[in-house]
Amino acid sequence: MAEEELAGQPRSLKIGVFDSGVGGLTVLRALLPRIPAAEYIYVGDTARLPYGSKSRETIARYAVSSAHFLVEQGAQFLVIACNTASALAIEDIRRAAPVPVLGVIETGSAEARASSQTNDVLVIATDATVQSHAYATACQELGLRALEKACPLLVPLVEEGWIEHPVTAAVLRIYLSELLERAQADGMHADTLVLGCTHYPLLRAQIERAVPDGLRVIDSAEATANRVCAALGIPEESILNDHQRHQSHQVRFFATDSTAKFRQLGTRFLGQPIEAVELVDLGG
Amino acid sequence: MAEEELAGQPRSLKIGVFDSGVGGLTVLRALLPRIPAAEYIYVGDTARLPYGSKSRETIARYAVSSAHFLVEQGAQFLVIACNTASALAIEDIRRAAPVPVLGVIETGSAEARASSQTNDVLVIATDATVQSHAYATACQELGLRALEKACPLLVPLVEEGWIEHPVTAAVLRIYLSELLERAQADGMHADTLVLGCTHYPLLRAQIERAVPDGLRVIDSAEATANRVCAALGIPEESILNDHQRHQSHQVRFFATDSTAKFRQLGTRFLGQPIEAVELVDLGG
Repeated sequence: MAEEELAGQPRSLKIGVFDSGVGGLTVLRALLPRIPAAEYIYVGDTARLPYGSKSRETIARYAVSSAHFLVEQGAQFLVIACNTASALAIEDIRRAAPVPVLGVIETGSAEARASSQTNDVLVIATDATVQSHAYATACQELGLRALEKACPLLVPLVEEGWIEHPVTAAVLRIYLSELLERAQADGMHADTLVLGCTHYPLLRAQIERAVPDGLRVIDSAEATANRVCAALGIPEESILNDHQRHQSHQVRFFATDSTAKFRQLGTRFLGQPIEAVELVDLGG
Repeated sequence: MAEEELAGQPRSLKIGVFDSGVGGLTVLRALLPRIPAAEYIYVGDTARLPYGSKSRETIARYAVSSAHFLVEQGAQFLVIACNTASALAIEDIRRAAPVPVLGVIETGSAEARASSQTNDVLVIATDATVQSHAYATACQELGLRALEKACPLLVPLVEEGWIEHPVTAAVLRIYLSELLERAQADGMHADTLVLGCTHYPLLRAQIERAVPDGLRVIDSAEATANRVCAALGIPEESILNDHQRHQSHQVRFFATDSTAKFRQLGTRFLGQPIEAVELVDLGG
């Protein structure tokens, strides 16, 4: 990649991205064309997923051990691309890591705040994220009323690869109509829908087709990448075009369990082949 | 329950049932009307699920700790209602437990052996179970050729409660037609379909409607309950009718994580309300 394309970009920046699995690769995918000059380290704590069913203390311990690993590997900025860890352990990670930390819930909520005129927003997420009410809490702090809905079938549908698929379209219609009915019953005038799970950006096109006009869809992966740029002082207009983004990037991938499975599943989330994945043991 | 109904049944038998989650409750549900006089102890190791993504050593350690707990609680017979533990750790459990042990894979395969005239059987299961090829191996040892298919959407559909649901019917049609096409391409003449996951008995009626005539559906929960009866010398004709089975049974439920979630989700699998669930710590 020619040097002149990267004007204004930090030259030796290392960004660490953490998720319990492969979903956070959608955040990395959004970061790559925005900050192509950076080096990236991605950790998927696949041996210990799902985080959603575990206690706050356990999740904090797991997330902090991943954050420590990323900092040891030289990360100067941490992106917590895991909704559960962002909801329950972001302050623990901030205390443990001597570098700036951004989590997907705060960035998704901030983007909803920037988008909404009516102050009413809708959030779809996994069961665990909804039960934590992390989006509702973060939105409320920003003066927004948020209605959350758990959509537990969407992650398995994405992992099955049924993206442009009639079954997925039917499931989305059911979930979204249930959510819109509840919003109407609550007297809400929602104008923004937050995709509160890092798997959902893969369904963004279908979701945008399924929602009524006037409801703007916030992709929390893109929202997070935009907020990382803002935090680093990188102008959004430096985002690369399609031709440029097919350059090779400097990324190291780590997983705590089956690297083969990570590579196979992860390629779909990253939108490009994953060459090598290293196994790392982050303890019990 | 009147004593005379229980003629021929052991009077002070304690049966331990183990699964990583609530799925094994379908096995308990099949046991209750067959051996109503027994006491039951059920352990769902919900804090450490899913087992499917973990290493053999870890799964064996987890399963053995649950088996020890059940024996300490007085279990004189262990039913391993977890496909992953049955596939990977049944011999470890047998070595560790001083009581008879039966696992769902050996019992489902034995029932397939008894059912099949053509020696060709089909198996549907989770991704982890299919990747272990445990059913294919067990079937091969019994002189059967087995074709396995992973159906990863069925567990989340059951857990979402979409049992008699058009989306589930569509998903089943897709999975089954893919399986039947592959069987035909392989030159198989399958006459038996094994439900190789303890969640699938809840979809049995839909599956039976979806398969072609001449394909017998083996419910591995019922198969397991029948084999437990055989092992204990209890005649199958002693099975209770619908009126009798609504008697109260002596069951203690243990879970290693959220007892509220276990009770809520488990009720659907057991087919009757679960009154009390006790939290148990089986270690890390």
